[in-house]
Amino acid sequence: MRPIRVAIWGFGAMGQGMAEMLLTKRGVDIVGVCDHDPTLVGRTVQDVLTQTVESLIPVTDDIDLMLNEVDPDIVLLCTDSFVSGVYEKIKKLLEKNINVITIAEEMVFPFQSHPALAKELDDLAKEKDVTVLGTGINPGFVMDFLAIALSGAMMDVEKMVITRKNSLNTFGLTVMEKYGIGETLEQYYERITNKQPIGHIGLNQSAHMIFSGVGLKPSKFEQQIEPILTQTKRKTKYATAKEGTLAGISLTGQGYIDEQLFLELHHPSQIEPDAQGVQTEDSIYLEGKPNVNMTIRPEIDGGLGTIAVCVNMIPHVMNAKPGLKTMLDLPVPRAILGDMRDMLETIE
Amino acid sequence: MRPIRVAIWGFGAMGQGMAEMLLTKRGVDIVGVCDHDPTLVGRTVQDVLTQTVESLIPVTDDIDLMLNEVDPDIVLLCTDSFVSGVYEKIKKLLEKNINVITIAEEMVFPFQSHPALAKELDDLAKEKDVTVLGTGINPGFVMDFLAIALSGAMMDVEKMVITRKNSLNTFGLTVMEKYGIGETLEQYYERITNKQPIGHIGLNQSAHMIFSGVGLKPSKFEQQIEPILTQTKRKTKYATAKEGTLAGISLTGQGYIDEQLFLELHHPSQIEPDAQGVQTEDSIYLEGKPNVNMTIRPEIDGGLGTIAVCVNMIPHVMNAKPGLKTMLDLPVPRAILGDMRDMLETIE
Repeated sequence: MRPIRVAIWGFGAMGQGMAEMLLTKRGVDIVGVCDHDPTLVGRTVQDVLTQTVESLIPVTDDIDLMLNEVDPDIVLLCTDSFVSGVYEKIKKLLEKNINVITIAEEMVFPFQSHPALAKELDDLAKEKDVTVLGTGINPGFVMDFLAIALSGAMMDVEKMVITRKNSLNTFGLTVMEKYGIGETLEQYYERITNKQPIGHIGLNQSAHMIFSGVGLKPSKFEQQIEPILTQTKRKTKYATAKEGTLAGISLTGQGYIDEQLFLELHHPSQIEPDAQGVQTEDSIYLEGKPNVNMTIRPEIDGGLGTIAVCVNMIPHVMNAKPGLKTMLDLPVPRAILGDMRDMLETIE
Repeated sequence: MRPIRVAIWGFGAMGQGMAEMLLTKRGVDIVGVCDHDPTLVGRTVQDVLTQTVESLIPVTDDIDLMLNEVDPDIVLLCTDSFVSGVYEKIKKLLEKNINVITIAEEMVFPFQSHPALAKELDDLAKEKDVTVLGTGINPGFVMDFLAIALSGAMMDVEKMVITRKNSLNTFGLTVMEKYGIGETLEQYYERITNKQPIGHIGLNQSAHMIFSGVGLKPSKFEQQIEPILTQTKRKTKYATAKEGTLAGISLTGQGYIDEQLFLELHHPSQIEPDAQGVQTEDSIYLEGKPNVNMTIRPEIDGGLGTIAVCVNMIPHVMNAKPGLKTMLDLPVPRAILGDMRDMLETIE
């Protein structure tokens, strides 16, 4: 059986991490890489990755040419966060009968936020006999999938309280800018006023994935955003937050069933959390029969976790029935330590 | 769409708990209950369950009559722990084109311990177009499924250390006898010498499910059993352990890849663990990229958890491709708070 053919579209930190991971795995080949960044185009994968890896695949900025030349089984799409950004790209891939995994946060559960586009992608994927999945560490794993999985050991659930207190230390420039690290409170309010995205994307998707997962229709879901202002200077490789400026963003959300609070989400993200005594962790408290009280300490690393979940879902997506799927539709992800092909049900 | 028709075979503590749970759910009916216990036969479900429930279904001891009369979509099989005990029962159900979920511990992953019987059941299920699943809180969830799920957020795994320190307090007489609670060290050694089962069943199955899940072939798997002798008198509703007698059983296991220790399992189970300062918990420590360090405190209740996982898997089993499946083949379990039929892909 030939190796699984994977192409990566979007070769930033996440795409590069996936390439690094794929190069350590058996039964899978990177056959193409596409990115429009002029500092990357024309260079080989092994030239871009600082680690010692062997891959002479060149980065191209011509997606159509790449897809026609390399004929991938699946594309890992790592270019955008929003459905609006990836929608046309996913359509292009489906039209060519290519499976897609994207880390676009909104694609983890687009059925509530973008029902028409989600249906269109689902229909097209079914027509073309391929599968689309949105995933990542969060949304896609910690604050939704894992909470749902734990609820599977419960006869009844009365309330869910899910917290991810994470460090942004390991992230690069894109994330620092996305979170406004080092910006003033004035700049923060300017972003809010201009409806410019800031901080974590996908809390809404996590909430609706949970409700859908347990079979409930929320009567209301509300979100709040707060700046995390630092009291001392904090510094990482890619950003500095002076005293009084943004060290991160805190999101909270509440989902109600018939006016009763059922779901609480807490998601403060910042650089150097221990500068102010914050211990990072993922915690899931499910009240019901029985109660389940889980903590992961420190939190699962966001960057590595996203790379891993995305790559580890490749065989599941290739095995899946056609359509637009969520993490709740497919078998549980798992580390792939053997040959990736052993996990396939069929491959031509 | 008509409700899902469920029958329960084995109406001990677990079967009764499943009935109680099913009676609170929408879109599902209990259509039959079978048990050979003369104190149960002839009584209705509502008479047996102490809670206020409405169900006039009678307990019968004639499985063939029951199956022919009530034509269930699925049977929850709660009679045995070993493959040898459930094998003929499962065959009988498959022959009648009935889906099966069993809490027989060895059926959670019978492919390594009972390859021939597993293949036979798999073939028969496929021929009859139905699905068989073995599950429960452990094996089936905590020490295998959940560890695998967490590994899904990892690029690589070097070592897995999985611990379940649980209390046997909530269990009934069957479990007290199974663990030899209150027996002397002499009686314990007699059981060991006579190869009489004692303590938790399924550690071997958990280990091989994990190896299979991540795609590794272990070079060796070893298990040890130790009595937990109490230093003070311990007492629960169903058993008493005097000073110096058995309060529980501790199992440990080690799995190796090429002579390298990869998997450590620790599973001490006892009544009144806090009598000797033992804090109960489930913990999963996965060393790799990134490390994942999870704790559930206290441990997920064994009885309630087993009932819940078994019932919550009903729609997944009905949706599944035919064959003998494991928890790793099906979508993640979840609490079912809406109508169970909403989770079905098709039902006639």
